[in-house]
Amino acid sequence: MAATAPAAATAPDCPLCDGDGGALVWRGAKLRVIRAQEAGFPAFYRVVWNAHAAEFTDLDAGDRLHCMEAVAAVEAALRAHVQPDKINLAALGNMVPHLHWHVIARFAWDSHFPGAVWAALQRERAPERESEVAACLAAAESAMAARLAQLA
Amino acid sequence: MAATAPAAATAPDCPLCDGDGGALVWRGAKLRVIRAQEAGFPAFYRVVWNAHAAEFTDLDAGDRLHCMEAVAAVEAALRAHVQPDKINLAALGNMVPHLHWHVIARFAWDSHFPGAVWAALQRERAPERESEVAACLAAAESAMAARLAQLA
Repeated sequence: MAATAPAAATAPDCPLCDGDGGALVWRGAKLRVIRAQEAGFPAFYRVVWNAHAAEFTDLDAGDRLHCMEAVAAVEAALRAHVQPDKINLAALGNMVPHLHWHVIARFAWDSHFPGAVWAALQRERAPERESEVAACLAAAESAMAARLAQLA
Repeated sequence: MAATAPAAATAPDCPLCDGDGGALVWRGAKLRVIRAQEAGFPAFYRVVWNAHAAEFTDLDAGDRLHCMEAVAAVEAALRAHVQPDKINLAALGNMVPHLHWHVIARFAWDSHFPGAVWAALQRERAPERESEVAACLAAAESAMAARLAQLA
């Protein structure tokens, strides 16, 4: 496995070095969780590694474990509070090569299901259902923050 | 976190319970690694949990660690042997809700880069470059199997 990036590593012109990348839900020494605003996906979060690292294996084994337990904490809170039909997890980074895990609650009624959120539209959006989910996010984020604090 | 699925759990009509899901590279007690045949992506692997579990948090913490260290082993072997421009990791499962991690070597010249493999085509395929990558897979898979055996 590759060497761990220094904790303070940043890269020029990287939007995830320059800013949080969304509405901050929780910040720890090594990573943060943000709520993204992605049209049609009302419960879309990202676990962002604080230091600039492109690939999962740029983290050492301990940091990988910490990172994925944070992803699991976000997933668990979403499952408990927004009852998605599926959770989608992904670390792509083709456009922003700074490690960030998408944690996305998916619903059978959402605009792209069962396709990936990056795939073609399947149907019109359902604003009322999106609002029902949005109403659960405060509770989900409280649960998330509590679980994340236990990892820190 | 939800309870761990029993190790022998299977589900009816699940293609990842009924078969390996691709060309078997390595099989352990809890998971297997297969090479997928996905047009345009010459180094596309999946880490498939052997028991039927839909979500990452259906695994307990020890199994999550084991699963992600297998994902890291596949990623590390691909980085070392096929020198991708980026690795993409994803567990979606909207169509086949049996936990499987896509581990995909991405190249700036591939048909969909920098989009997700599920997104719209960006350019024509490059068969000669795909063949150059394919020629490295035997070595990548030997390295993968060696790393995976250390986890087992």
